[in-house]
Amino acid sequence: MKLSRGFVVWLTGLSGSGKSTLAEALARELRAARACGGKIEILDGDLIRTHLSRGLGFSREDRDLNVARIAFVAHLLARNGVAVLVSAISPYKATREAARGTIGDFVEVHVAPPLEECIRRDTKGLYKKALAGEIPLFTGISDPYEPPDAAEVTLDTSALDLRASVERITAKLTELGYLDDGEIPSSVQDSV
Amino acid sequence: MKLSRGFVVWLTGLSGSGKSTLAEALARELRAARACGGKIEILDGDLIRTHLSRGLGFSREDRDLNVARIAFVAHLLARNGVAVLVSAISPYKATREAARGTIGDFVEVHVAPPLEECIRRDTKGLYKKALAGEIPLFTGISDPYEPPDAAEVTLDTSALDLRASVERITAKLTELGYLDDGEIPSSVQDSV
Repeated sequence: MKLSRGFVVWLTGLSGSGKSTLAEALARELRAARACGGKIEILDGDLIRTHLSRGLGFSREDRDLNVARIAFVAHLLARNGVAVLVSAISPYKATREAARGTIGDFVEVHVAPPLEECIRRDTKGLYKKALAGEIPLFTGISDPYEPPDAAEVTLDTSALDLRASVERITAKLTELGYLDDGEIPSSVQDSV
Repeated sequence: MKLSRGFVVWLTGLSGSGKSTLAEALARELRAARACGGKIEILDGDLIRTHLSRGLGFSREDRDLNVARIAFVAHLLARNGVAVLVSAISPYKATREAARGTIGDFVEVHVAPPLEECIRRDTKGLYKKALAGEIPLFTGISDPYEPPDAAEVTLDTSALDLRASVERITAKLTELGYLDDGEIPSSVQDSV
């Protein structure tokens, strides 16, 4: 499995939907396969807030600025041959479409378990607070999430396990010509 | 001339010192020589303010945040094999040293014509305003510039022409092992 050129896999979805876990599993797989010469970067929404967007809040304007900054950096990396895995709620459709326009080589993955499943998992304990009204502007509870109309991949991670989810993405990357073929070394399959 | 690995050339100096002109000439040279497989990016301070730091001002804290963001992006690119040319006033020594620490492969170039020469050129018409008191916090006039103690290269661009300045930098890059050798195609010499 070799990459022909850089690209961005843009994982969008609610808090607790499994974006980061999926990004890490996909990165492991691409890295082990030496895709893109091993040039893989994860841009995580929380990390980017720390490094590029300190002081921004959660208004639509601030969320959009944060997403635009992620897109700017992802584009710089992708056009230099890096496989970039973005993991960010990125709730607004128009903002994601602007990122797609800037980046070009853009593969949108909607990580979409039912909201109830995200609430059940509550991996960061945030839904409990949001439902108690302690977090204003919480996506899915008190702030909008606009699902994609035509994401390249949509994954209900309450029904698909991690390996199957990763395989759905690599199959799409192959179909789109970002991977030379869909063959995955068995050693990698074992590690996913 | 081939690059063995990614690196950052960090051009620091006053407004009007010639940082951007130098970055562009160096980029042309590295690009024509297919250094780093042609993977060259310029991160210009003004551009970064637009894309990553909208809303930040010119207090020490805001300048430092802006420089830290440039360093974050430069590091991401350099560790993926890109030659990154940063052009930013970056007036504070400690902040540049922090960037050096983060990035590792860091070549500091102090673009250092005398202040009087920058005022004489006044390429953006800013010194006139700053000297008239119309721009508060203007580096070199009403805000500090802390010169490097030990930049890898220091260039008095009032005494050296553009080609000689570029050659001083490529010679240092060769010496540090970032370029395989110092040979520059004559076609490139002509274009500088």
